[in-house]
Amino acid sequence: MADIRNKIGKEKCAELLNASLEIADEIREIVLAKIISGFEVQVKSDNTVVTDVDMEVESLFRQRIHEKYPDHGIIGEEFAVENKDADFQWLIDPIDGTEEFIHHIPTYGTIIGLNYKDSPIVGMMDHPTLNARIYGAYKAGAFYNDKKILMSENKTAELLAGRERIFVPPFASFLKWSDEGNLFDRVVRSFPNIRIFHGCYAYTLAITGGAAAMVEYNVKIWDLAASQILAEEAGGAFQLIQRQPRPNGIVSYGAVFGRKEIVEKLVKLFPEMNA
Amino acid sequence: MADIRNKIGKEKCAELLNASLEIADEIREIVLAKIISGFEVQVKSDNTVVTDVDMEVESLFRQRIHEKYPDHGIIGEEFAVENKDADFQWLIDPIDGTEEFIHHIPTYGTIIGLNYKDSPIVGMMDHPTLNARIYGAYKAGAFYNDKKILMSENKTAELLAGRERIFVPPFASFLKWSDEGNLFDRVVRSFPNIRIFHGCYAYTLAITGGAAAMVEYNVKIWDLAASQILAEEAGGAFQLIQRQPRPNGIVSYGAVFGRKEIVEKLVKLFPEMNA
Repeated sequence: MADIRNKIGKEKCAELLNASLEIADEIREIVLAKIISGFEVQVKSDNTVVTDVDMEVESLFRQRIHEKYPDHGIIGEEFAVENKDADFQWLIDPIDGTEEFIHHIPTYGTIIGLNYKDSPIVGMMDHPTLNARIYGAYKAGAFYNDKKILMSENKTAELLAGRERIFVPPFASFLKWSDEGNLFDRVVRSFPNIRIFHGCYAYTLAITGGAAAMVEYNVKIWDLAASQILAEEAGGAFQLIQRQPRPNGIVSYGAVFGRKEIVEKLVKLFPEMNA
Repeated sequence: MADIRNKIGKEKCAELLNASLEIADEIREIVLAKIISGFEVQVKSDNTVVTDVDMEVESLFRQRIHEKYPDHGIIGEEFAVENKDADFQWLIDPIDGTEEFIHHIPTYGTIIGLNYKDSPIVGMMDHPTLNARIYGAYKAGAFYNDKKILMSENKTAELLAGRERIFVPPFASFLKWSDEGNLFDRVVRSFPNIRIFHGCYAYTLAITGGAAAMVEYNVKIWDLAASQILAEEAGGAFQLIQRQPRPNGIVSYGAVFGRKEIVEKLVKLFPEMNA
C-alpha cells in the first residue's frame, strides 16, 4: 500500500521542514534571552509547572503558522486546538521539561512536529542551552546539528551490549491516572542501566545514539510530536505502546523508540498493550 | 568537641582550595580538547568503561600533587593509592560518568576532594561541557561558578513541595553485589519524581537546588569525595547510609545529601543502615 505521505512531494516536505527550523531559530532566541532576564513560574491545575516562556513561545509559533499556513491545524500544550479538521496538523510543546528549565538544567527543549493526515512528515527538537538541534523530514533523513544521523553507525552500541542504556520516565509518570508502577518495575528489571532526564533531550539521545532506546508513558500527543519521524529517518524504530482516552478529552500516549532490536525487546514488556 | 579541621586554619584551607581549582582548570582544558580530537574507549574488568582521558587526567592530577604537596596521600579511580598514612588525602574521580562522557552527554564531570584526618576540607566538581563548577572549603562556603550557594534561598523548593525532585542511581547500581532492588523500589515509591543522570552533575544539582536531594549507592570513595563538604557548606546535609567492605579491599559507599528535611526523610528509608 502506498504511503499517503508520498503525495506531498520532496520539495514541499523540505519547505515545511525549513519553516519549522526558521521558527525554531526565533524560539531559541526568546528562550535564551529569558534565561538571562528571568521569568515567572506558576503551578497549573494538573499540578505541573508552567512559565511565561512556555506561553510566549507557543504564541509566537501559532502566529508564524497563521502567517505562513493559515489553513493548517495547530495542537499545542498551552492553548486550544485550531483548525482541527485540516490535513496538515502542527504540534508544539513549547518547553518540554519545564521543571528542568526552571532549574536551568539544559535537558529541556522545544518540540515541533507536523502530521499529514495523521502521519508524521516533519520533526524537530531544539535544546537552546546545549546548542543542539535534531530535525528531519519524511524520506529526507534526520540530522543532529549539521550531521546526518545513522543509528547503524553507533560505535558504542557494541561496547555496551548486554547493559544497554535506556531512558525511562520518572516513576511518577506511572502513577498519573492509577498505580501502574509494575510497568516501571518490569522495564528497570529487564534493562537496569536506566537514565531519567524528563526533558526531551532524552528523546534526542535515544535517536542520536546516546542511549539504546527511550520508553515514554502517559504523555500528551505533543510530547511525541517529533520522535516517530526522527527515529525512523535515523534508521531506528518507533512503536506506540499506549493510546488511552482519559476524562475531559485527554488522551495518554506511550511509546518506545530507538534501536530496532532494543525497541522490539522493550515492546514485549508491554504485552497488554499490543492489541 | 572541637572539630579537628579547625587546626588547619582559614589561610591554609584557602590555599588548598585554590590548588585544586588550578589543577581543575588544567584538567578542563585537556577534557575539552579531547572531546574535539577524539579518544579511546575500553571496557574494564569490572565491566565499566574507561577512556584514555580518564588516565591522562588522573596522571596530571597526581603529578601536580607530587609537585605541590609531595607528602600528601592520593586515592584515585585509575591508579594505586599513594602515601596512604598521610594526614592529608586527596581524592579524584577524573571522569565521573564515563558512559555519559563517551556519548558526549554533558552530565559527566571531574571530582576532587581533600580530607584531613578523614574529615573533608576541600571539594570541587567541574563540568567542562556545561562551563559549570561547584567548589568550597571548610568554613569558607560553597560556590557555583562565582555565586555563593545557599540552599535556604532555593525559590523552587516551595513550588515543588510534595513532589520533590530526587536524583537516584540507575537500578543497575542496586544489583552490583547482590539484588537490592527493593531499596530502589522503596525510594521511588516514597519520592516518585525521580531523575537519573549517573554523572556527578546530579550531585551538583542536589547541592545547588536543581533537586531536593541525591541518593547514591554502591559507589567508591572518590565518587563522594566532594559532596559532603559542598552540601554542608551550602547549608544542607550529608549522611552516609552505606560503608560496606567487599572482596579485594573494595568498600562500597552510599550517601544521601541535599536539603536537610528531605535528607532526614530519605535516610529513614534505609533503617537497616542506620547502625
